[in-house]
Amino acid sequence: MENRQQEFVTHITPREEDFSQWYTDVILKTDLVDYAPVKGCMVIKPYGYGIWENIQRELDTRFKATGHKNAYFPLFIPETLLRKEAEHVEGFAPEVAWVTRGGSEELAEPLVVRPTSETIICAMYAKWIQSYRDLPVLYNQWCNVVRWEKSTRPFLRTSEFLWQEGHTVHATEEEAQEETLKMLGVYKEFAENVLAIPVVTGQKTEKEKFAGALKTYTMEAMMQDGKALQAGTSHNLGQHFSKVFDIQFLDRDGQLKYGWQTSWGVSTRLIGAIIMVHGDERGLVLPPKVAPIQVIIVPIAIHKEGVVDKAREVYQKIAAAGIRVELDDRDTQSPGWKFNEWELKGVPLRLEIGPRDIENNQVVLVRRDNFEKKFVPMDNMIQAIQDLLVEVHDGVYQKALKMRENYTSVARDFDEFKEIMKEKEGFVKAMWCGARECEDNIKAETGATSRCIPFEQEHLADNCVYCGKPAKHMVYFAKAY
Amino acid sequence: MENRQQEFVTHITPREEDFSQWYTDVILKTDLVDYAPVKGCMVIKPYGYGIWENIQRELDTRFKATGHKNAYFPLFIPETLLRKEAEHVEGFAPEVAWVTRGGSEELAEPLVVRPTSETIICAMYAKWIQSYRDLPVLYNQWCNVVRWEKSTRPFLRTSEFLWQEGHTVHATEEEAQEETLKMLGVYKEFAENVLAIPVVTGQKTEKEKFAGALKTYTMEAMMQDGKALQAGTSHNLGQHFSKVFDIQFLDRDGQLKYGWQTSWGVSTRLIGAIIMVHGDERGLVLPPKVAPIQVIIVPIAIHKEGVVDKAREVYQKIAAAGIRVELDDRDTQSPGWKFNEWELKGVPLRLEIGPRDIENNQVVLVRRDNFEKKFVPMDNMIQAIQDLLVEVHDGVYQKALKMRENYTSVARDFDEFKEIMKEKEGFVKAMWCGARECEDNIKAETGATSRCIPFEQEHLADNCVYCGKPAKHMVYFAKAY
Repeated sequence: MENRQQEFVTHITPREEDFSQWYTDVILKTDLVDYAPVKGCMVIKPYGYGIWENIQRELDTRFKATGHKNAYFPLFIPETLLRKEAEHVEGFAPEVAWVTRGGSEELAEPLVVRPTSETIICAMYAKWIQSYRDLPVLYNQWCNVVRWEKSTRPFLRTSEFLWQEGHTVHATEEEAQEETLKMLGVYKEFAENVLAIPVVTGQKTEKEKFAGALKTYTMEAMMQDGKALQAGTSHNLGQHFSKVFDIQFLDRDGQLKYGWQTSWGVSTRLIGAIIMVHGDERGLVLPPKVAPIQVIIVPIAIHKEGVVDKAREVYQKIAAAGIRVELDDRDTQSPGWKFNEWELKGVPLRLEIGPRDIENNQVVLVRRDNFEKKFVPMDNMIQAIQDLLVEVHDGVYQKALKMRENYTSVARDFDEFKEIMKEKEGFVKAMWCGARECEDNIKAETGATSRCIPFEQEHLADNCVYCGKPAKHMVYFAKAY
Repeated sequence: MENRQQEFVTHITPREEDFSQWYTDVILKTDLVDYAPVKGCMVIKPYGYGIWENIQRELDTRFKATGHKNAYFPLFIPETLLRKEAEHVEGFAPEVAWVTRGGSEELAEPLVVRPTSETIICAMYAKWIQSYRDLPVLYNQWCNVVRWEKSTRPFLRTSEFLWQEGHTVHATEEEAQEETLKMLGVYKEFAENVLAIPVVTGQKTEKEKFAGALKTYTMEAMMQDGKALQAGTSHNLGQHFSKVFDIQFLDRDGQLKYGWQTSWGVSTRLIGAIIMVHGDERGLVLPPKVAPIQVIIVPIAIHKEGVVDKAREVYQKIAAAGIRVELDDRDTQSPGWKFNEWELKGVPLRLEIGPRDIENNQVVLVRRDNFEKKFVPMDNMIQAIQDLLVEVHDGVYQKALKMRENYTSVARDFDEFKEIMKEKEGFVKAMWCGARECEDNIKAETGATSRCIPFEQEHLADNCVYCGKPAKHMVYFAKAY
């Protein structure tokens, strides 16, 4: 028994040894995902897709509560549409997949497999929007998108991925800006309260903004290897697209005006963030609100009379309370083996029940995040589980916050900056003059890119960390996925 | 006022005059869908997508209750995979979209945009399945698929559509057959109890079965123009795919065996069925269980004191009961105009509330299907709405059943068959010898195809309706979408 447990655990490469290999071990061994026989594509297996379904449900509820409706736009975009917005096509053309043949015919005009849907959606909006009465348009779509990536990793960067993209049109610049920030706020609240991932929010620099946007806002999360991950973006598109797609409306004042637009999205990349923020030496640690299984029941001494029956009774009670629960009643594996397996899979709570527990009319609850064990009277079981799920959420959030704080440094000059990036990585807060050249040089010399100009500004120094000219903003820099 | 109502209603072509134009008028004027700037593709607008979300939720619950889990497989399938199963590639190759370029590179091997996912899923199953302990595999995916169609109609046949495809693997032939029929049963129960569409279920002939299947089962619905619509199919794939993809497992008896497979799917085509089965001269009639709006509140004398407040209060109560309700409090349109609009959009129940109703502490409820009006005391409102939604469901189901019965005829000889297809169309029940040639000839001479060999067989005659040789089965024939 002990040997098997030992063997089981050592399947995962330690994080300190090779974080990238740890990530690969975890995603494959927990059945989240598998590599597809198509370059750069992944198969999302049921355990991984279950996380995505929970993410979808939580976000979709929030989108609807803020007045958005779902729609569905075509997968294919005619080349001419993609080419309408100059910056947009420049940003996306190098990484799109092209459909050039339908059935046995060569297409007169090649089609792009959507890398994002601004262009096809704007073409429709131009048709639908005539009057201020048609505004705001607040639509979202859940779909797959394709970006022909050279170097890929499951969840983090794949040629095809799943996401949602919100696309809105407003009568005024102010409303569009308000929407852009509102949805970034929805993302932040979701990341923190559902995924238990603390995020820094702020604006992207000109260099890092979305191709075609006026302003891009982002939420950035810190991973356990000191690298940042862009976890969601919200774009104020201004009138860039409405002018080239001719989205005009007759306003209250009788004037014909161009609409003000936003777009915003998060993707299956969030699953990568969950893994890299919360995982530990035993595998996944899933935040309870998106865990496909919140409670796993492992019967002890399963062959003893009454144990399986009691375990099933407990299962029924927990399931009836709306908690996502499973019973591992396999008689081919020992409890110890099962403990390992479900720890590997990151189930937030383990419930053990054996002959002695039945005698004492209790169950044993063990937290995945800190392995704390609690003996709970049967009559109080549901409440105890609900409380513990909240505690696990808070526990992993606090742990992630502490990790990020440890990975957040201040650089007052460029030597300090380089030192941090060499020794420790993580976020570096530093002052910046606003010049693209300094961003480029910082990247070339340290590998760090500007992640965002955070809303919460601090005055660390008067001058740019790179060039020494007067500083405009404090910026978060980091190496990033 | 009267004039405006008149004008509004006449926007729709009468069904009797031109059913196809009626369909087009209805889908466009109710904002279900729009044509996309890509040949054969559609945009599903929020009102149409709302129906699809309800279909998804209802079906997904049923799939999970029968032990299935969702997963996600790649959009792209390498050409070599598609070519592995001979019948399958022959059936699908002529209608696939080909990706030949990624970024600026020509691909070494062209990729097919999935027309269905058997091949890519089988490639993964071959990797995942080793032992009888891995079986059954019961996976489903919700996704988009592409079939390069020459002639398209929104919802009924489009180059891209949304669907679900279940793909299962079993240890025995019996289990696979059981699964195939179980899922057809789930579809039938769903069609009747959720969509209020009666369906005939049975087996497809060899000619009409899915490319690569051993046996295909189908549910067939009758539209108001006398044409049938294949509304969902469930395939017993036998070992056709497992043998070419090498899906083998070590069985309990120590033998290496090929898995037995099924696949089954329904699509956004179901929305087309809803429209063509239930719609009437005023527009859509939506079955309550999938209607995006189940109750529309129209305040009467909206400018009178207290009316809007009361309408809002009523709205809150109904929404709190979990009923999908909207309040039309626009002051730019008359109640009559609103009645027309919401009838056009097929909302199952209209709730009117005006000064006199407030005085009498009542609301007025009007059914969309038969325009019956009921005065209901405020205290009993929720119960009355819930009861009426059930009654509307039953009402539209019975109406559809009667329509189908009127469109179901028996042909004992081929003259009778031709006469029915000329005069009336609809389903023709007739005996068949089992020969492909007779099917081909019947189609050539009448336009009718064999829809299915129904489970409920009747002995109408001894001989084939076409060739006169001994009959093997009773078959449903019809012209079909």
